[in-house]
Amino acid sequence: MLKTPYLLFLGDAPDQLAAKTAQGIKDWRPEFAIGQLRLEGCKADLQLPDMSIEQAVAAGARTLVIGAANRGGVMSDAWNAVLIEAIRAGMDIASGLHDLLGSKPELVTAAKEAGTRLIDVRLPQIRYPIANGKRRAGKRCLAVGTDCSVGKMYTALAMEKSMHARGMKATFRATGQTGILITGNGVPLDAVVADFMAGSVEWLTPDNDADHWDLIEGQGSLFHPSYSGVTLALIHGGQPDALVLCHEPTRTHMRGLPHYGLPTLEELRDLALATARIVNPDVVVTGISVNTSGLDPQAAKACLEEIERRMGLPTVDPFRDGADRLVEALR
Amino acid sequence: MLKTPYLLFLGDAPDQLAAKTAQGIKDWRPEFAIGQLRLEGCKADLQLPDMSIEQAVAAGARTLVIGAANRGGVMSDAWNAVLIEAIRAGMDIASGLHDLLGSKPELVTAAKEAGTRLIDVRLPQIRYPIANGKRRAGKRCLAVGTDCSVGKMYTALAMEKSMHARGMKATFRATGQTGILITGNGVPLDAVVADFMAGSVEWLTPDNDADHWDLIEGQGSLFHPSYSGVTLALIHGGQPDALVLCHEPTRTHMRGLPHYGLPTLEELRDLALATARIVNPDVVVTGISVNTSGLDPQAAKACLEEIERRMGLPTVDPFRDGADRLVEALR
Repeated sequence: MLKTPYLLFLGDAPDQLAAKTAQGIKDWRPEFAIGQLRLEGCKADLQLPDMSIEQAVAAGARTLVIGAANRGGVMSDAWNAVLIEAIRAGMDIASGLHDLLGSKPELVTAAKEAGTRLIDVRLPQIRYPIANGKRRAGKRCLAVGTDCSVGKMYTALAMEKSMHARGMKATFRATGQTGILITGNGVPLDAVVADFMAGSVEWLTPDNDADHWDLIEGQGSLFHPSYSGVTLALIHGGQPDALVLCHEPTRTHMRGLPHYGLPTLEELRDLALATARIVNPDVVVTGISVNTSGLDPQAAKACLEEIERRMGLPTVDPFRDGADRLVEALR
Repeated sequence: MLKTPYLLFLGDAPDQLAAKTAQGIKDWRPEFAIGQLRLEGCKADLQLPDMSIEQAVAAGARTLVIGAANRGGVMSDAWNAVLIEAIRAGMDIASGLHDLLGSKPELVTAAKEAGTRLIDVRLPQIRYPIANGKRRAGKRCLAVGTDCSVGKMYTALAMEKSMHARGMKATFRATGQTGILITGNGVPLDAVVADFMAGSVEWLTPDNDADHWDLIEGQGSLFHPSYSGVTLALIHGGQPDALVLCHEPTRTHMRGLPHYGLPTLEELRDLALATARIVNPDVVVTGISVNTSGLDPQAAKACLEEIERRMGLPTVDPFRDGADRLVEALR
């Protein structure tokens, strides 16, 4: 979907956190990140070579990725001159912001003249099929969470990295805009029309070698009333062989919904298995991934041990410990 | 959403079945159906007064509803002259066909000139909110099925009719194009973007009197891998107090998926309750609606009795028996 490698555009990002999409690309696909372009006032720095458009093109960059967000996900007018320069130099522009590239007439005109693409990864780029529910060759692992934003993308990317290090066949399958920008491909599932959700996930995770694993990025939670339908479509379209439960132990309520408590890991396990068995009777829960960033190291260790004992499953924080134990559990 | 009453346009429908949307309007909202308009060769007849556009307008018709389908859901060119005449006479046009009114330049131009509306009820007409999961006043009943197309819309409409006959406050809430044309309002849920599905159902079933029942039209099935995400969004957006299980006993596999068997009513009950309790801990299954059209009267009776005994819940075929027992069970 996206041509690689990328020039990472950080714009006038007010701090390092505002450049987290670019940071994710550098962390997980360093071979795609050949340079960064920062405007005056930019407070983020990825420790990549600073490049002009001209230098980036000479170095082989094929897409300028907008890797920073302003407040409100809006594109700054100050960016326009640089983006148009990139377009005229033959680069595609890719963005995951709410504010769409396709809504900027000056960018649309420039891209049309230059014959390059403006790619808003929040929007589906193709017409997906209706799901047919047929079993596909190859193996699939899906991260499901007690809540939204508990580390499902990180878990799947860390597992992919561990599998590649062991020489295993594995592909992270992105289902959200950050994952799509990191890997250059995927389905923006929350923007797909209802009838085609599960079909888009089948399309994303097609037949593969018998020993190949798709590591599917989770979305939402079966227990989050705003997004649970997206999660179920992911489970039924993805047909996982293995489920990894993801959790954030310091959350006191569902994200954005102070009136909803979190489910227990046992409740998540039971409902995820009940729904996943409809498409794959052999599905199992193989491990648990806990985001312990809200705990000090000692409390994190105690938390992981308690959950591992209680649930009888390998339990790690992949950010602190890596994902090796989650990968070993897949065998 | 639609202005009533309607002139029902049957076009050149090749048989009575092709006019089933118009028949649904006449059956469930006879007060909306002031006449029918049939073209040469039309083989359907609703036993309504045949009217020209001029007569229909004089009788008060405000919307011409396309109530018949050609093969493939395509609009016939033969229809154009009549539709344009209706537009020029000041009527809106409403359609649930795949082939969109909005894709016909001559209709679009005529409607713009006349200041009338072309309403493709398959397409969302408004921007729905993200669901917030908050409890709302009033009661809600949702029909959930072992499969798609097992009679969920019919069940909800029959319950509404029975409740109105008793003087109860009740509103059928349409979630598909046929239901929307019948009632003039609703959400085309299968065409809503993933993130807004549950929110669209919350919007459709707002706060109401404490003794008012929304009878929400079901979609898909938790057990149908192509559409299960739509169903879960309906359960979580609808926050049902009561669930009615819908079933078709002669089905040998899930609709369109010969490789998937049907769940049992017990499995449907358990999974529907497990998911619905997330948003409403007090939800109960109150009855079972069985579409016995594939059985002779004796076999139908035996089937209903067996299910009622097994499940311990009032079990009826609302087409044969009416929905009174399902309504009594809500009290």
